[in-house]
Amino acid sequence: MVIKEFSIHPLAVADPPLRSSYGRHAPYALRTLIRLDTTDGICGVAEAHGGEGSLAALHALRRLVLGMDPFALHDLWMRWGAEEAAGDRTQTWMVPGENPHDARRRAFAAVEAACLDIIGKAVGKPVCDLLGGRARGAAPFSAYLFYKHAGGGGEGADEREDEYGECLTPESMVRQCRRMIAQYGFRDIKLKGGVLDPEIEIETVRLLRAEFGPNYPLRIDPNCAWSVETSVRVGLALREELSGGGYLEDPCAGLDGMAEVRRRLLAAGADIPLASNVAVTGFEDILPAWRGHAVQIVLSDPHYWGGIRAVQRLGDLCRCLGMGLSMHSNNHLGLSLLIMAHTCCATPAMEFACDTHYPWQHSSDEILAGGRVQFENGAVRIPDRPGLGAEIDWDRVARLEERYRRLPYRRRDDAAEMRKHVDPAWQRILPRW
Amino acid sequence: MVIKEFSIHPLAVADPPLRSSYGRHAPYALRTLIRLDTTDGICGVAEAHGGEGSLAALHALRRLVLGMDPFALHDLWMRWGAEEAAGDRTQTWMVPGENPHDARRRAFAAVEAACLDIIGKAVGKPVCDLLGGRARGAAPFSAYLFYKHAGGGGEGADEREDEYGECLTPESMVRQCRRMIAQYGFRDIKLKGGVLDPEIEIETVRLLRAEFGPNYPLRIDPNCAWSVETSVRVGLALREELSGGGYLEDPCAGLDGMAEVRRRLLAAGADIPLASNVAVTGFEDILPAWRGHAVQIVLSDPHYWGGIRAVQRLGDLCRCLGMGLSMHSNNHLGLSLLIMAHTCCATPAMEFACDTHYPWQHSSDEILAGGRVQFENGAVRIPDRPGLGAEIDWDRVARLEERYRRLPYRRRDDAAEMRKHVDPAWQRILPRW
Repeated sequence: MVIKEFSIHPLAVADPPLRSSYGRHAPYALRTLIRLDTTDGICGVAEAHGGEGSLAALHALRRLVLGMDPFALHDLWMRWGAEEAAGDRTQTWMVPGENPHDARRRAFAAVEAACLDIIGKAVGKPVCDLLGGRARGAAPFSAYLFYKHAGGGGEGADEREDEYGECLTPESMVRQCRRMIAQYGFRDIKLKGGVLDPEIEIETVRLLRAEFGPNYPLRIDPNCAWSVETSVRVGLALREELSGGGYLEDPCAGLDGMAEVRRRLLAAGADIPLASNVAVTGFEDILPAWRGHAVQIVLSDPHYWGGIRAVQRLGDLCRCLGMGLSMHSNNHLGLSLLIMAHTCCATPAMEFACDTHYPWQHSSDEILAGGRVQFENGAVRIPDRPGLGAEIDWDRVARLEERYRRLPYRRRDDAAEMRKHVDPAWQRILPRW
Repeated sequence: MVIKEFSIHPLAVADPPLRSSYGRHAPYALRTLIRLDTTDGICGVAEAHGGEGSLAALHALRRLVLGMDPFALHDLWMRWGAEEAAGDRTQTWMVPGENPHDARRRAFAAVEAACLDIIGKAVGKPVCDLLGGRARGAAPFSAYLFYKHAGGGGEGADEREDEYGECLTPESMVRQCRRMIAQYGFRDIKLKGGVLDPEIEIETVRLLRAEFGPNYPLRIDPNCAWSVETSVRVGLALREELSGGGYLEDPCAGLDGMAEVRRRLLAAGADIPLASNVAVTGFEDILPAWRGHAVQIVLSDPHYWGGIRAVQRLGDLCRCLGMGLSMHSNNHLGLSLLIMAHTCCATPAMEFACDTHYPWQHSSDEILAGGRVQFENGAVRIPDRPGLGAEIDWDRVARLEERYRRLPYRRRDDAAEMRKHVDPAWQRILPRW
């Protein structure tokens, strides 16, 4: 069995105007669907980051994939040079999906997932069962809350209900969270911060805790928007709220700053773990992060760490170093959600609920035949089907691909959206507070 | 498909009177063959450590394995509590196969290998291809040289040729090596030291280098027989011979001693890496070993590190910490050799030739149908058969099992053999020199 076809489908997915320190989400999030077909007539699929950077890497990888045995993944990794990620890795200002250091690993990860989908279908087993089996039966996710402007995003938004409405105050965030938990049953809460004045974000976290109580661990992620000083101040203000299973994620830019934040929090008796997915995006980053006590929880992601197996190996590494393991999310569709769920279930060390943007995508853009993936008590159960368990609605794919080709969006640029809609002079400034 | 039968076959394998700092090998090395049979009629096998300790752990694990899906290995790992390995791990005096800290992992590792054998047979793929595929097409091994007394070991030894004869001098060791390399084509040389006066062992290494030249990297392993002082002295005397792909393995007992040896060697300009398989036998040991610069190369072993996948994960951990990865060997038959070869081929980080005792076992004790595994240029090629690629000669197994039951050997005790044959007062003393 070898791979005889490799098709690459860029997709534009409607996305509401969510806010972060990067700016404001464009009306479309970009994703890529890849499809591998084997000489045995088996088709494997995977979802990857989107836009022209992702497409270029996948097209470059394509010639190595055609003709390969889908089991021969180490060989592909080596031929593709995915190990090499030299250069300055102090990449704390970049969106993970756009970081050039990890571009080869992102492309490899997509092919790995599609090959595992093929293998699972050939063998009649779900992907996580090919990887040592399940450390847990379902993958828990967190309620990922965003400050946002009104509107559903993308074409047809006017006809769709703006499910969560505008949310730029602590009180509306509590409503957002209540609604999301009622619908999905999440048991962990993540607030995307770095958007409003830190005092308002502190107040938001406090209100969330008051509403949901200590059984809903809280994490806040300002994406490096704060100075060391501000990070320490927020940490101390939220020392109760962010402990007991919660964490403070990428409060400021750079490992040195994170290490100082941690030192100062500890010195003040606040043992709040720091997490990262921007200062730590590859195996090369772990040791510097660990050595300086800058990061206590690594946010993995099968899409950019080099695949599902890479996250499994990262889990053992983290355990050995006494670090925790959680999972980062970009905007994604149901196929990525399944990749993340298989990864979580096959990784014993994944002891935190994973992040997911899934509630922010609308069912009308779902590419899975049969509609959106369902959650039970905030968790995704592995489908009782071989491979990733995804059946693709190719008409939907064609529609999202046509939309990608018609629209001008080619890379994520949240700052451009801020300049267009909020402030013509807006720039991402680190630290902002 | 679930496992419906789990049979455990203790084996006694003829072994020549090899010497090490533990003493003298008994006439029989102890191994265990396990066999799992599934409801689908597929049979998986694996070879494990031997003797009553190994048997007890495998029998205890048996009740968890019966009825399990062979894909559900993470679940077994957790139910069996293989993660727990508490207690004082400064275990530098123990033979790896007898270390109680890793007993659960050793038993799990055997079941994992047999389950992977089943999965491979069910899927029609060699085991290494189930684990990400091959980082290399064949697994390179080293020529593992021992000082030894005359005799082939075990019953029937008198009728068999004593292939290597007595070897207690530098000159006879060069002959042993020449013979072994002529037969197997090894490209790396490992000398088991800690047996004769260090000056004689230094002379042995020098003669080996003079005979084979720098293209045959050299390693010496005195199994902790030396003091720090002696370790430094030998290292400095052999600074040329042990560099360039060679290493100094467990020269003295304990991580503190190893760290001091490394410091003093470096201070004298001798950058000889130190390797270990006694101070470092589990993931818990890696960090203390790395932190103190006591160990630069970790000697893995799928038999006691918790399986083939555990060695793969160890590989990434070692790369991340800048440590090298090699592989330890106990006495073993061809089935273990295949397990080791699959592990090596599926582990990109395995960049040193693996150790093997295989040349020391006689073809008349091989349990593989078709006879002994063949080497090409010192390497074992993955058989073009599903699973581990082993077909078992069950008559041979019955013969070695009958021998085990008839004979009194129940655990490895090289000191007892020394007292019996060499010196009635012999004890293992660390350091001896």
